Amino acid sequence: MHLKRASLLLAALLPMTSAVAQTMKPEDQIAIRQAAYTLMGYSFGGIAAMAQGKRPYNKEEAIKDADLLVQVAALPQDFFGEGTDKGDTRAKPEIWTKRAEFDDKMKKMLAEVAKLPAVTRTGDLEAIKVQAKATGSTCGACHDEFRIKR
Amino acid sequence: MHLKRASLLLAALLPMTSAVAQTMKPEDQIAIRQAAYTLMGYSFGGIAAMAQGKRPYNKEEAIKDADLLVQVAALPQDFFGEGTDKGDTRAKPEIWTKRAEFDDKMKKMLAEVAKLPAVTRTGDLEAIKVQAKATGSTCGACHDEFRIKR
Repeated sequence: MHLKRASLLLAALLPMTSAVAQTMKPEDQIAIRQAAYTLMGYSFGGIAAMAQGKRPYNKEEAIKDADLLVQVAALPQDFFGEGTDKGDTRAKPEIWTKRAEFDDKMKKMLAEVAKLPAVTRTGDLEAIKVQAKATGSTCGACHDEFRIKR
Repeated sequence: MHLKRASLLLAALLPMTSAVAQTMKPEDQIAIRQAAYTLMGYSFGGIAAMAQGKRPYNKEEAIKDADLLVQVAALPQDFFGEGTDKGDTRAKPEIWTKRAEFDDKMKKMLAEVAKLPAVTRTGDLEAIKVQAKATGSTCGACHDEFRIKR
């Protein structure tokens, strides 16, 4: 098979990598996804802290966190392109060898995250607790299998 | 003056530092603001590339970039707290010695960024070009004075 055609086919097989991301250098893709995960940790961490009673519940803060989380959580899926398995990354090689499973876990996380803006706007702390737990499970499910422990 | 009262007064004088940010370690605050700037560069960079004809214009991509930019651009202002002038940072000491000027530049950037979601939704590339330029100027104005060059 012609090499260029093979690489186009490969690109087509990377379902969650955007056209823009594919033009970026691997180290830049890694920087974007790491920045996104940092802000996912920050924004979801805020909601989780309120849900667990570690921080006083504040409706406006929870809404802000949820709105930020939706935006940043959408990013990483596009930035696991070719060559981004090497370098300064905690991404396990299994992301690329079990890509369908990885993508599925990513989608499950996004589905739970997507509920948080509405749930936080209810101001119902019990509902927030339930949804924070459901969301946190989807984070952990992926980290357990696809992130290098340290 | 009693030391605790002095530090409460100091906290009150840091107008743009949130209560949550103040509980975070300096290195964690730096990590959050750097992640935010990385994603500001990515999202605004996408709009700027389209505005400058370096990337084909795509309305949906521009809207996505603008919505992300609004969320992440709101973050750094809260994470220049006490002790965050040291460590792995390109922040110049002038941020803290000329804080009012820094805060003013930050507000001007946020005011221009806030217009991008509506402008990108018009699908009017000429309007996007104008607003991208206005926004870019506010980024540069702050970087010129308050960011260490490399």
